[in-house]
Amino acid sequence: MQNQEIKQLIEAADDAINREDFEALMEFYSDDAVLVVKPGLLVRGKEQIRKAFEAIAEYFNHSLAVEQGKMCILEAGDTALVISNTVLNVGQRTDASYSMDRNATYVFKREEDKHWRCIIDNSYGVELLDVEDKEK
Amino acid sequence: MQNQEIKQLIEAADDAINREDFEALMEFYSDDAVLVVKPGLLVRGKEQIRKAFEAIAEYFNHSLAVEQGKMCILEAGDTALVISNTVLNVGQRTDASYSMDRNATYVFKREEDKHWRCIIDNSYGVELLDVEDKEK
Repeated sequence: MQNQEIKQLIEAADDAINREDFEALMEFYSDDAVLVVKPGLLVRGKEQIRKAFEAIAEYFNHSLAVEQGKMCILEAGDTALVISNTVLNVGQRTDASYSMDRNATYVFKREEDKHWRCIIDNSYGVELLDVEDKEK
Repeated sequence: MQNQEIKQLIEAADDAINREDFEALMEFYSDDAVLVVKPGLLVRGKEQIRKAFEAIAEYFNHSLAVEQGKMCILEAGDTALVISNTVLNVGQRTDASYSMDRNATYVFKREEDKHWRCIIDNSYGVELLDVEDKEK
């Protein structure tokens, strides 16, 4: 009995990432949202998050494609924890394509306008414990 | 720069579990909280959560001792995701003691009274993806 609304939001957000429509992507985030760019590097707020996605797109030479595999959504009141097998395909437009597979943790919040938005975007899941914690 | 209040709450909650003071333990949970008893089995609300802890204590013959190792807290507005290496020691009062090591995910919420409370208690972390999702 999963929250279909959140599942569809994540699919639509992935689609925005894959199209590099970062303006549309920001609609999925809360104003207070935090994104784990990589273990040890966090960014906060829509402006910083959009810049991080632009840098990530550049880093992967505009070849990044994200999709979700198996997903588990734990909903409690206005909060939901999403655990998802996130697959990142990189370099599909070249011969050197490869994919990365992560067990991600996302936290969603149902805000005052009743829409669910991502408040914590941590695609590294529990891997964060493997590195020192520090914030940009 | 971790949220020390949440870290201390988790330590105090572990202490309540280890003393089997489940009345005190319930103070750490939101009214809407959900607990993953085991993958595929969720319980909701303080009454069900307390009963689950009583059953867990019974199951481990009142020998369960919980402590946290390395912890990472991602805070965003009134929401926080805790990723923690949770160590469960079982059977310390017998010769057959052993310990279980889990990378847990807990979600905390700062409620209207400004206190942080656990809203999603998932000590299994991303392991939830390994089993079918079903709710009691």
